[in-house]
Amino acid sequence: MRLDKIARYLGGELSGPGDIEIVAPAKIEQAQRNEITFLANKKYKNFVKSTQAGAIILAEKIDGLQIPAIIVEDAYVAFVQVLSLFQPPMHEYIKGVSPLAFVDQSATVHHTVSIAPFVYIGPHVHIGENTVLYPGVVLLENVRVGKDCVLYPNVSVREKCLIGNRVILHNGCAVGSDGFGFAPRKQDYVKIPQMGKVIIEDDVEIGANCTIDRATIGETIIGQGTKLDNLVQVAHNVVIGKNTVIASQSGISGSTVLEDHVTIGGQVGVVGHIKIHKNAVLAAQSGVTKNVQEGAVLWGTPAGPI
Amino acid sequence: MRLDKIARYLGGELSGPGDIEIVAPAKIEQAQRNEITFLANKKYKNFVKSTQAGAIILAEKIDGLQIPAIIVEDAYVAFVQVLSLFQPPMHEYIKGVSPLAFVDQSATVHHTVSIAPFVYIGPHVHIGENTVLYPGVVLLENVRVGKDCVLYPNVSVREKCLIGNRVILHNGCAVGSDGFGFAPRKQDYVKIPQMGKVIIEDDVEIGANCTIDRATIGETIIGQGTKLDNLVQVAHNVVIGKNTVIASQSGISGSTVLEDHVTIGGQVGVVGHIKIHKNAVLAAQSGVTKNVQEGAVLWGTPAGPI
Amino acid sequence: MRLDKIARYLGGELSGPGDIEIVAPAKIEQAQRNEITFLANKKYKNFVKSTQAGAIILAEKIDGLQIPAIIVEDAYVAFVQVLSLFQPPMHEYIKGVSPLAFVDQSATVHHTVSIAPFVYIGPHVHIGENTVLYPGVVLLENVRVGKDCVLYPNVSVREKCLIGNRVILHNGCAVGSDGFGFAPRKQDYVKIPQMGKVIIEDDVEIGANCTIDRATIGETIIGQGTKLDNLVQVAHNVVIGKNTVIASQSGISGSTVLEDHVTIGGQVGVVGHIKIHKNAVLAAQSGVTKNVQEGAVLWGTPAGPI
Repeated sequence: MRLDKIARYLGGELSGPGDIEIVAPAKIEQAQRNEITFLANKKYKNFVKSTQAGAIILAEKIDGLQIPAIIVEDAYVAFVQVLSLFQPPMHEYIKGVSPLAFVDQSATVHHTVSIAPFVYIGPHVHIGENTVLYPGVVLLENVRVGKDCVLYPNVSVREKCLIGNRVILHNGCAVGSDGFGFAPRKQDYVKIPQMGKVIIEDDVEIGANCTIDRATIGETIIGQGTKLDNLVQVAHNVVIGKNTVIASQSGISGSTVLEDHVTIGGQVGVVGHIKIHKNAVLAAQSGVTKNVQEGAVLWGTPAGPI
Repeated sequence: MRLDKIARYLGGELSGPGDIEIVAPAKIEQAQRNEITFLANKKYKNFVKSTQAGAIILAEKIDGLQIPAIIVEDAYVAFVQVLSLFQPPMHEYIKGVSPLAFVDQSATVHHTVSIAPFVYIGPHVHIGENTVLYPGVVLLENVRVGKDCVLYPNVSVREKCLIGNRVILHNGCAVGSDGFGFAPRKQDYVKIPQMGKVIIEDDVEIGANCTIDRATIGETIIGQGTKLDNLVQVAHNVVIGKNTVIASQSGISGSTVLEDHVTIGGQVGVVGHIKIHKNAVLAAQSGVTKNVQEGAVLWGTPAGPI
Repeated sequence: MRLDKIARYLGGELSGPGDIEIVAPAKIEQAQRNEITFLANKKYKNFVKSTQAGAIILAEKIDGLQIPAIIVEDAYVAFVQVLSLFQPPMHEYIKGVSPLAFVDQSATVHHTVSIAPFVYIGPHVHIGENTVLYPGVVLLENVRVGKDCVLYPNVSVREKCLIGNRVILHNGCAVGSDGFGFAPRKQDYVKIPQMGKVIIEDDVEIGANCTIDRATIGETIIGQGTKLDNLVQVAHNVVIGKNTVIASQSGISGSTVLEDHVTIGGQVGVVGHIKIHKNAVLAAQSGVTKNVQEGAVLWGTPAGPI
């Protein structure tokens, strides 16, 4: 790929000739002359003059540089974007709709969608352009999936749930299962019908074998850009804001609200019906029993300031 | 549905005319004249006289009431039952046996069973009336499933396990996987064959991506009416009594016995070979290392009285 | 099976006639005359003279014994091996390649492999002799599975991952899902491509609904003979040594190294980028935040000596 094309992709400023051909990204101390590298950590500054790379991504111009540079706001983020650019193409062998899939005749599937063998698409399902469904994916009645999504093997989404654009659901993740709601009777429990749904907004990524329960009434919501690691539990009627990050094996109990930009470590437990305000940080294995203020950093069980 | 029919369904006493038509359940402050509501919490008592509802469910008669009432023992439980009554019909599009399912010719499947595409029914499996199997369900050799069960997508049940009536297994839950049993040898481990089974009794509900291991010899048992939330682990030879409730991400180690009506919060760990007596309550994130007395309420790690 | 054949299988020394027929293993106090028993625990020594068993497995000869014996180094391990020998044959009904499976024409599948209905075998997959794939197993592009493996229902393995010989993967376990890697940008996160793989060495067993993430670059490794219980999380670039044992619901964070013969209880959390040296023991529910020395026994959060 030509260097000027990479610069345009990154929205960066090109300094030097743009007509050289780049074949791969590489670390600054290992890069060869047809590769592109980056400088984000000052520890590596000495390598800038000695690097064999053909081009470099920088956050600011460096005087006397011998090689062309792309100047961007965040050199590390830009390099990660270049990694994706040079990633070998994925999903290419899951092309078209497999004759071994089941697609209900009332479903609306864009002609660019890829559906592998043994995928089940129920009645009135709607799937947007370029979405890829791996083997064993199950979408029940009235599910909507947006465009450019990837649903990996054995993901299942129950009826009525809505999934946005560019969403990634990893192997075995379960969306829209019944919330855990029962009315105690004298000796036993009566099931409370779970009639709501799950809404997963754009750019969300959910890890393998996570469980996201549908709301009793209304919606369980995973906000735009939020990322969940593997084996995370999200109970009924939870509302998670935008760009929140939850590490593996954490659980959020029913009706709790997480605002935007919350960060939650692994194996954290959060009780139901509380609010975690924006930018809060909950350290790994915390047990959180009360509302958490904006920007607070908590640890322990019950969780308190570190 | 006519009000007198609802009263009969609830086993309640009708006070007032029974020939009015009810179209939905609703909250007391929002209900319209063709809807039914309820009073369970005294906080809402003032609404009884002003409600626009067509009928109301009560635990005791109220003098001077302008609308017909159904008198029951527990008004909240009765209202939850009415919610189920008015729930839109589910599972209707999974009717009959899909030609895309595999049903071994030695299996016994009642003619009212619904089997979706990509369901696997192994040799000598037996399935009772009205049970619904969603796409990706796998039942291995000699499994028995009772009547009126729902097995959601990608549930798998290994050989010989027995499932009662009215059981609900949510997406991806794994029943009958090998117990974690190995004999240490000098440098490595020798697998102990796991030759028992799992028995799931009537009216049990098991959450998404739970794991219920088969016994080494004999049975792992989940007792009647017990409810498990998502991602719960039940190890080999555990015996759980009736109407016990376990919240998400808790784990019960091998051969431990839980009696009836135990309540366990989220992310609790219980060691192996102990007994939790009836009506005990284990708070969220507890680590339980010893026998627990009847009715005890424990918290912390190691767990002690609150 | 003749007793002398069992002795040869165990590599033990036969004391007494070898031509008797054994039909089952049994406990010393219950064994009948055509059954074989064992003595490993001194508590049961009194039963040796009264047992009705036809033969016994011992770690050392006993004078005046009335029945033939097989003398081995570890009588319990040998008895477990005999249990496996007499286990009813499994997997027999999953024979050959089902016409309801999908096998890409570029895949290399040994003629002794068993592939159930609704199994997906992607391009360039390689599967060794006698391996059994249960319904719903998904192997994506370029996966290699060795010989004598068993992959239970709904196991999925993503592209390029390598699985050794005699590996057992239980229901729903997810191998090779993307590691949890994102570069924070001003308001959101940019996905870091996860381009590595997972290597599972020989004789590994992984429990139901476990999640083993692929490396960002390079490999996530599960070493030979290691055993993982259900719902265990192994993050990207983790390296686990040989014959390590991890109980249910524990999680190992990114790039951490576990050496050989480590023992980890249930619900343990281990942070990223640390090293647990060989023979260390981490008690249940520990939170481990620093390197752990060889043979150390830790408990608590943060974990310290017991």
